[in-house]
Amino acid sequence: MAKLTSRAEDYSKWYNELVVKADLAENSGVRGCMVIKPYGYAIWEKMRDEMDRMFKETGHQNAYFPIFVPKSLFEAEEKNAEGFAKECAVVTHYRLKNDPHHAGKLIVDPEAKLEEELIVRPTSEAIIWNTYKNWIQSYRDLPLLINQWANVVRWEMRTRLFLRTAEFLWQEGHTAHATEKEAIEETEKMLDVYADFAERFMAIPVIKGYKTESERFAGAEETYCIEAMMQDGKALQAGTSHFLGQNFAKAFDVKFTTKEGKQEFAWATSWGSSTRLMGALIMTHSDDHGLVLPPNLAPIPVVIIPIHKNDEQLTEIGRVADEVISDLKSKGIYVKYDQRNEYKPGWKFAEYELKGVPIRIAIGPKDLENKTVEVARRDTMNKQIVPIEGLADYIGNLLKTIQHDIFNKAKSFRDAHITKVDTYEEFKLLLEEKGGFLSAHWDGTAEEEAQIKEETKATIRCIPLDGEEEEGSSLITGKPSKRRVLFAKAY
Amino acid sequence: MAKLTSRAEDYSKWYNELVVKADLAENSGVRGCMVIKPYGYAIWEKMRDEMDRMFKETGHQNAYFPIFVPKSLFEAEEKNAEGFAKECAVVTHYRLKNDPHHAGKLIVDPEAKLEEELIVRPTSEAIIWNTYKNWIQSYRDLPLLINQWANVVRWEMRTRLFLRTAEFLWQEGHTAHATEKEAIEETEKMLDVYADFAERFMAIPVIKGYKTESERFAGAEETYCIEAMMQDGKALQAGTSHFLGQNFAKAFDVKFTTKEGKQEFAWATSWGSSTRLMGALIMTHSDDHGLVLPPNLAPIPVVIIPIHKNDEQLTEIGRVADEVISDLKSKGIYVKYDQRNEYKPGWKFAEYELKGVPIRIAIGPKDLENKTVEVARRDTMNKQIVPIEGLADYIGNLLKTIQHDIFNKAKSFRDAHITKVDTYEEFKLLLEEKGGFLSAHWDGTAEEEAQIKEETKATIRCIPLDGEEEEGSSLITGKPSKRRVLFAKAY
Repeated sequence: MAKLTSRAEDYSKWYNELVVKADLAENSGVRGCMVIKPYGYAIWEKMRDEMDRMFKETGHQNAYFPIFVPKSLFEAEEKNAEGFAKECAVVTHYRLKNDPHHAGKLIVDPEAKLEEELIVRPTSEAIIWNTYKNWIQSYRDLPLLINQWANVVRWEMRTRLFLRTAEFLWQEGHTAHATEKEAIEETEKMLDVYADFAERFMAIPVIKGYKTESERFAGAEETYCIEAMMQDGKALQAGTSHFLGQNFAKAFDVKFTTKEGKQEFAWATSWGSSTRLMGALIMTHSDDHGLVLPPNLAPIPVVIIPIHKNDEQLTEIGRVADEVISDLKSKGIYVKYDQRNEYKPGWKFAEYELKGVPIRIAIGPKDLENKTVEVARRDTMNKQIVPIEGLADYIGNLLKTIQHDIFNKAKSFRDAHITKVDTYEEFKLLLEEKGGFLSAHWDGTAEEEAQIKEETKATIRCIPLDGEEEEGSSLITGKPSKRRVLFAKAY
Repeated sequence: MAKLTSRAEDYSKWYNELVVKADLAENSGVRGCMVIKPYGYAIWEKMRDEMDRMFKETGHQNAYFPIFVPKSLFEAEEKNAEGFAKECAVVTHYRLKNDPHHAGKLIVDPEAKLEEELIVRPTSEAIIWNTYKNWIQSYRDLPLLINQWANVVRWEMRTRLFLRTAEFLWQEGHTAHATEKEAIEETEKMLDVYADFAERFMAIPVIKGYKTESERFAGAEETYCIEAMMQDGKALQAGTSHFLGQNFAKAFDVKFTTKEGKQEFAWATSWGSSTRLMGALIMTHSDDHGLVLPPNLAPIPVVIIPIHKNDEQLTEIGRVADEVISDLKSKGIYVKYDQRNEYKPGWKFAEYELKGVPIRIAIGPKDLENKTVEVARRDTMNKQIVPIEGLADYIGNLLKTIQHDIFNKAKSFRDAHITKVDTYEEFKLLLEEKGGFLSAHWDGTAEEEAQIKEETKATIRCIPLDGEEEEGSSLITGKPSKRRVLFAKAY
């Protein structure tokens, strides 16, 4: 295996190589669309299952809505339509026919033109609220708490595996409520769910906040988000939760009868997270040797590799491995035993390092004598000789320690990359030299925000929810501001 | 709730009403596409999770491939292309723009025409084998055992909820092997997995067989299938497993180096099952009161309904219910306790009957006195007074009994609807009067098959795998035949 480009050399190249070499994903024969390979998909499945459990625990049910949005529904909520119109795949025909001029080739059949074009969903508010019209009549039908796991398509011009692809997998929650207050509570609750998932499972520390008007979801009254910090000092939005007000209820005429017998428009939220999270996971923890996966999401938390010179040794090592596997299984820990003969131990070590397996156990002839094994942590690359007696407990604890440690490592890095800045000069200097989140005052206008973006490529990632009131003056116009916001260059 | 149309009155109308009234699915604002509602989706999730477990146990891994197939890839395997070209959704543009003549309206931007049209996948052999070209170099890369859960689109002209929809959810397995023998073994193994799933979880007896050439999957060398019998005597194909030979390997140039150093084309299989299975589940077991669900797939296996005259009674019933719930939970059985005050017990009884909840437990004041509950089976509608002492065991066993009984009921019905027929007159008569599978001799030609189809609408559902050799003469041409095949009208 050729070595990875190092992060210091070229962070972006390191990422692209790692995604492919660790068998996570690759580009496909379709422009901008990726193939998620089995190992990458196994990580996504773990993420999906965990989030799904959290959504259900908070009272949500799954459903499935059509992939197509007829143009007339798509354009019903104007801001939403405007936001997505420029990047959507459009189905115009429903049949191919034989090309009369080239045998074996097909052409679009002009007689099979659709009366109304269909948009491949870039997001499902329109099709879902058109459905909710029939589901919501009375306050008794509310709240309606629905989630969908689906694929969506946004015709991005510049794509990167996981981070920005024309098609991606995601979940989108779409809820309807009787009051504004309830809808805002839901929006905030789901933001908390995302933050909790990111921190406890992905081991990624996040900052909760809300977006400025120009960064809001098209059609939202308020967009909440969680923002994470990658190792190159760039920010990555890891989940968004939108308070949609009554915009979609009005666009699709979704009214309900209140307890008092009045007719009112329903209040809406939507919230989403996608395979983009895979990008965040990779970029937060991994190193020049390959992936570093948090134990809570690793498809293979532990691998055992035999080191043997002959078949007899292999048989004996196999016996020890079986015991270890069964002990760990009884604790609910899955272990892979890699006894493939075609590959040498050194090759396997590199392979599992590349794939981010949190713990590697090697068993050799000396270990058999001493009743020990060698345990190596992927995150620190530390190795230790450990007695077989009590090994399952040791491994169980070590997995927890690793989960804890990589979160703390990412948090230390993140915290060291949040800098308070009070002048625009300092802002520009720090952005280039150090990157990270720059905590600064902003005058609250789209103009200042746009100028900073144009001149530095930094955007306001969020207005932190836990930000303190503080008198200050904004970076460019010097107007008074009461609160710092977080700027960063972002994925 | 208005009553369902009875099956005897209009089977087709009964089905359509049931799907909507039991909150399984409904038509959407997009022609031919359905919305799968939360209750219907919860059943599908159980089916999906169970099948997914079975696929993984047989060594398969999940992955994800693009939803779009560029036209040039789509047409590479000619038979496959020909089979699906007439019913596929085609993306021709990637952008909308404001309609200059109508404010707030959008039109397709003619400047955003794709250089090559994209087909929304009707099945994924083409895009997947185009990918496998890069994944398969050596015999060491084989077998490649991949499954995908995805949505697909086939532009059906006449659609029916679950049974035939323009978009549906499914899984598609795509495997590559070094030898023909291995590929055929895989095809047969996955047919067994489908049959096992249908019988043990869906409680649907199925006949395993293979298709005639004219009923084969486009691009397959052999199509195996499982066929089920609905209550109206029509057949429903509940899963297919295809041996694809080297057709796709040749179309996409997927060669590997054998152990002996030779270059050979890989051997392929694909196998699929879809949300169509929901239709089979509904039509096999349900009755004029509503759904009948097998306990192994019921989102709510048991519901408890309190029958009370005042709040005091409700509190006391609640205490008993809590105990029952916790006892059942400890056995892994999920119970819903429906204490909603807005609905009367009678209304709730009808609601859970409609939704096919296998066991209903009612607890009233007399039960409190006698330390009993009333247990009602959905399948037989039988009620029984049962002591609370030992109730969890009773319920656990009853769930198993119900699963067993509804399978046997369906099997008796199915077996009573397989009839040996030796003349075409008798064939036509029986088909009209009784329906079901007609086991008859066929001369092996597409001509006789087509004539029977045209004259009677019956098709050859399968050539059963366990069919015995028997001398006979075919229905129309009277030519000699060595084996009976199964004819039926089908969904």
